[in-house]
Amino acid sequence: MIRQVAGFRFGAVAAGMKQSGRPDLALLVADEDVPVAAVFTRNRIKGAPVVVSQERAKAGLARGVVVTAGIANACTGRAGVEDAQKVTRALGRLLDADERRMLAAGTGTVGVRLPVDRVLGSIAELAERAHADGFEEFAGAILTTDQAPKIAYAEVGLGKLRVRLLGCAKGAATVAPNLATTLAFVVTDAALDGRWLRGALREEVDVTFNEVSVDGDASPNDSLFCFASGRAGNRPLDGGAGGRAFRAALRDVLDDLATQVVRDGLGATRVVTFEVAGVADVKTARAVARRVGGSPMVKTALYGADPAWGRILCALGNAGVDLDPERVEVFVGPVQLVRGGAPVGGDAPEKAAQVMRRDAYTVRIHLHGGHAEGRHVTCDLSHDYVKRNAEYRA
Amino acid sequence: MIRQVAGFRFGAVAAGMKQSGRPDLALLVADEDVPVAAVFTRNRIKGAPVVVSQERAKAGLARGVVVTAGIANACTGRAGVEDAQKVTRALGRLLDADERRMLAAGTGTVGVRLPVDRVLGSIAELAERAHADGFEEFAGAILTTDQAPKIAYAEVGLGKLRVRLLGCAKGAATVAPNLATTLAFVVTDAALDGRWLRGALREEVDVTFNEVSVDGDASPNDSLFCFASGRAGNRPLDGGAGGRAFRAALRDVLDDLATQVVRDGLGATRVVTFEVAGVADVKTARAVARRVGGSPMVKTALYGADPAWGRILCALGNAGVDLDPERVEVFVGPVQLVRGGAPVGGDAPEKAAQVMRRDAYTVRIHLHGGHAEGRHVTCDLSHDYVKRNAEYRA
Repeated sequence: MIRQVAGFRFGAVAAGMKQSGRPDLALLVADEDVPVAAVFTRNRIKGAPVVVSQERAKAGLARGVVVTAGIANACTGRAGVEDAQKVTRALGRLLDADERRMLAAGTGTVGVRLPVDRVLGSIAELAERAHADGFEEFAGAILTTDQAPKIAYAEVGLGKLRVRLLGCAKGAATVAPNLATTLAFVVTDAALDGRWLRGALREEVDVTFNEVSVDGDASPNDSLFCFASGRAGNRPLDGGAGGRAFRAALRDVLDDLATQVVRDGLGATRVVTFEVAGVADVKTARAVARRVGGSPMVKTALYGADPAWGRILCALGNAGVDLDPERVEVFVGPVQLVRGGAPVGGDAPEKAAQVMRRDAYTVRIHLHGGHAEGRHVTCDLSHDYVKRNAEYRA
Repeated sequence: MIRQVAGFRFGAVAAGMKQSGRPDLALLVADEDVPVAAVFTRNRIKGAPVVVSQERAKAGLARGVVVTAGIANACTGRAGVEDAQKVTRALGRLLDADERRMLAAGTGTVGVRLPVDRVLGSIAELAERAHADGFEEFAGAILTTDQAPKIAYAEVGLGKLRVRLLGCAKGAATVAPNLATTLAFVVTDAALDGRWLRGALREEVDVTFNEVSVDGDASPNDSLFCFASGRAGNRPLDGGAGGRAFRAALRDVLDDLATQVVRDGLGATRVVTFEVAGVADVKTARAVARRVGGSPMVKTALYGADPAWGRILCALGNAGVDLDPERVEVFVGPVQLVRGGAPVGGDAPEKAAQVMRRDAYTVRIHLHGGHAEGRHVTCDLSHDYVKRNAEYRA
């Protein structure tokens, strides 16, 4: 499997932030300052790494990003921001980069300061260890409550050239005192226009990471970065056929990573896609899909493989969308459960229950009130979610 | 305990809708047509009893209400509405009332037609059994997944007169295939202006039933009724000191019933009140309290008695309210957990955990960004919620 992208190096060391003693300080660094695009949490409470990176990413150029895993550096006030700046400043000096080109990300315990001395004591080794083959080390070091690393890869043909996109992510919903932040990193060797990339990334995140949830809360530290080294040597992308092909590959990588995050969702036993069709506009369709898929009574039915069409209709009726109850249809996989707002009956529930025992399937809701559709990808709400969330301290 | 209100009779019989064979058809009837006010679900999908009652209640006068428990008569289309009309028509004939003055409510399985013949075969006995002392029978017959009946009583002094308010409710969140509808019924012997009552009821429901939740979904059948016989003989209330005293008593009754519904919430082990202060307006304060109290990661922390202030801040940051993170304070009971957006530390978490082991307590969040406050009363999200919801069919 390809785990290299020209122009980038990756490394990780253990700096004592994870109780397990595993690597917890990770570096992604480009050979020079390169175009970067980033998307950050909409949570009004932002971790210190987000405060630092959000400001710096506006320049559209970066050398790399340093990740602390185990300590989020969130809810640490002004001092936390200064801690993040100290780390990026020292790394910048080591890498011969402007500190303003060094970004930061963090995940783990909130309300606890970074062990700055230990981190600063580790960065020389971190910078030295960074190498072209280090992507898997990086992808492993950023994990916290995750059960497995999440990596995705895609290639795009541009004439005779091929460009690569390699991404990784972490995130598995919320376990206190860790708020399991979603972090994602994509590197590509494509040459491209930075402004175009920023628009493209925002739109592709909207139809991938912004369409998934585990338990509906965005962490103060959620961050997603895309760095482009330009080493593939293509004519810089800024739209057109090449741009469309690149965006399709970017979407594939983001969708793959987002789905891996849901699959590893806290206590999740299944990944379920809610599709809502027949709505006036896409935004409403997505909001309805999110509302139905986010309902605890629906999510517990998913866990029990219970074809509880009544709960789906109930959540639908609370989703704030105008609808004609007598035109609603609900399908689980290929099995129609509701027609004309009423249950189909017969052996439909039993057939639907069989679909619902799968690891992944789709619930499709048609409102017959328009031509737009949208989706939301989520997981079930299991005993294990409650156990791991409630009994974390036990 | 006082369980009578002059001018009203109550009865219940078993009509075969509950599998247990318990009474499941209940009647509340006034001696004559009396002022009525009602509040119905905002779910866009409405059960047949809601369709019928919502239209009829507009007249502001009613003779009574008939309740089916065990079968909700929801998602049954036009035929379900006709079923409800058949029942109220036959009861009207028996009671010598205009059928348009007979209201209906239902709770239980959705998507199943009423057994109209059995119900019609039971109503003569139902009407005959209705008696002034039948309130507890009525309050018991309307229950479905509830563990206990919910009754509340208050009196108001108006000069030398006393007026009575007697209420009951059912509801315990959602168990498929039953959507555990919230139903509530209040009777009073106060004389009052019907239009004034409708305004007062809506406002008092806003600060009681509309401030509680178990799992955040309103059922298609939620309904709340208030009937006033006028038999106390007071000068009809339409505001003033008497009106204020009556409203305070009405609020007490509704608040008591709403809290009983939360306490009996599916799998609930604790009742927790989220108070949000220091916000620009009451509506926002309530919405923030509802968002924080409705977050699954917060609700599982309540279950685990885990003083997870980080989760509370995280949910707060997602509540769509403008806030200065560095001014946020969080208290659990009297224990301050967060000051200036950062953890207080020390023994605060251990002290807070002690409070959180109680059956009921308050989480207070102060944003220091305005002078309004609001609350939301909810329960924890327990193993038993998942078990009873997910394994209902097992």
